Amino acid sequence: MRGTGKGRIFIVGTGPGSIGHITPYAMKALRESDVIAGYGTYLDLIRELIKDKEVVSTGMTRETERCRRAVELAATGRTVSVVSGGDPGIYAMAGLVLEIVKKQSEDSRTDIHIEVVPGISALNACASRLGAPLMHDFASISLSDRLTPWELIEKRLDAAAAADFAIVLYNPKSRGRTRQINRAVEIISRHRLPETPVGIVKGAMRENEKIIITDLGNMLEHDIDMQTTVIIGNSNTFSWNSLMITPRGYESKYSI
Amino acid sequence: MRGTGKGRIFIVGTGPGSIGHITPYAMKALRESDVIAGYGTYLDLIRELIKDKEVVSTGMTRETERCRRAVELAATGRTVSVVSGGDPGIYAMAGLVLEIVKKQSEDSRTDIHIEVVPGISALNACASRLGAPLMHDFASISLSDRLTPWELIEKRLDAAAAADFAIVLYNPKSRGRTRQINRAVEIISRHRLPETPVGIVKGAMRENEKIIITDLGNMLEHDIDMQTTVIIGNSNTFSWNSLMITPRGYESKYSI
Repeated sequence: MRGTGKGRIFIVGTGPGSIGHITPYAMKALRESDVIAGYGTYLDLIRELIKDKEVVSTGMTRETERCRRAVELAATGRTVSVVSGGDPGIYAMAGLVLEIVKKQSEDSRTDIHIEVVPGISALNACASRLGAPLMHDFASISLSDRLTPWELIEKRLDAAAAADFAIVLYNPKSRGRTRQINRAVEIISRHRLPETPVGIVKGAMRENEKIIITDLGNMLEHDIDMQTTVIIGNSNTFSWNSLMITPRGYESKYSI
Repeated sequence: MRGTGKGRIFIVGTGPGSIGHITPYAMKALRESDVIAGYGTYLDLIRELIKDKEVVSTGMTRETERCRRAVELAATGRTVSVVSGGDPGIYAMAGLVLEIVKKQSEDSRTDIHIEVVPGISALNACASRLGAPLMHDFASISLSDRLTPWELIEKRLDAAAAADFAIVLYNPKSRGRTRQINRAVEIISRHRLPETPVGIVKGAMRENEKIIITDLGNMLEHDIDMQTTVIIGNSNTFSWNSLMITPRGYESKYSI
């Protein structure tokens, strides 16, 4: 994507968690890399592909340190892949790496070739497992208030629900963050009926995959955690035969 | 995804338009199929892969007819892939096919195995080409009012802009639909500065790819058409070195 120096960084999405959903282009980037940087769990999936590579791996919370190290290595002329599960461009590593490159190039005029290689994100993967919940306009909202004021998240939930967007909830709940999902359901319920279909997908396309179709009134009875993505239908979404379907238009303007 | 009969339908996403971004799983579905149904342009991309297959191809506007034919063929016990560019689950074929299967199974108790195979959608592809514009919450809105009342689209534009979502615009303009994008900019500008970064991507990852980074105040001076996806930053998005970056949080809670 620019850069005349020898060093290269690929920011690579490995998709939902099965080798069959990693694009050939992402595979190529990994193969061409001298160094692979990533969080342990994501690297496990591609262990076989990267067995002859140098690996920079740290825990989930030390991602800034890991990305900084990746950029430093690229600045020495090496080819480095920073690996994200899903799509690096959606709530993942692309932004952080670019911010670090920006800072380092201001400090030291580093000149690195950077390329973001997209992957199948959780929203694409989970939607596919549920049927067709995202056929119409949708909003994607993370319930993590670690780096975002909770008031803004509430405002977004309310706005998205009021304007009849289908809603994808990322990071719905973690061990230390349990109330947010309850509050989200409360806010969305101001604008949407308890019967509104809701899909809950845990570990999409992994061995432990679990898919639940429920509704807004009952969704909190189900198991939701950090590995879960939740999709809430719009006012036209219906469920049929364990599938969740959002029609592609309103007003029955089309006949099937 | 259920179905005990012999017939199968894969609803397959072929990604943004280069073979390197089609997942191995999607390739496998195409290989296993007897029949491929799709719009001409999308089939061109995979011509080599499907040369020994029976093909059901019709123009873009006759997609309902094409999907109905695909479902009928699957009901006779054949394996059929319905092909979408991008991700079939985002403004594409998944919903229509499932609605037709539902209708036909109610009429005649058809029993088909259905599987949606996700692909890299325009929003993932375009975001990757622009840098990292979707690192935080975003809303996806189609400006096509063919099947959706324009008032609802306006309401969504206003809600998304007011709640500081990054905004992805699908179908921004076509030959017969030219005013909508002007109106969208007007509405979004109520809540966002003219300096807000905007990315315009035409033909992402195709030979004719064209990437423009501009801002809300100047975006209408650029070429926008049906092949274009537009991404408008949130209040924190900045551009640097022909890249568009949305930080992953607010309040500088993290240091790089």
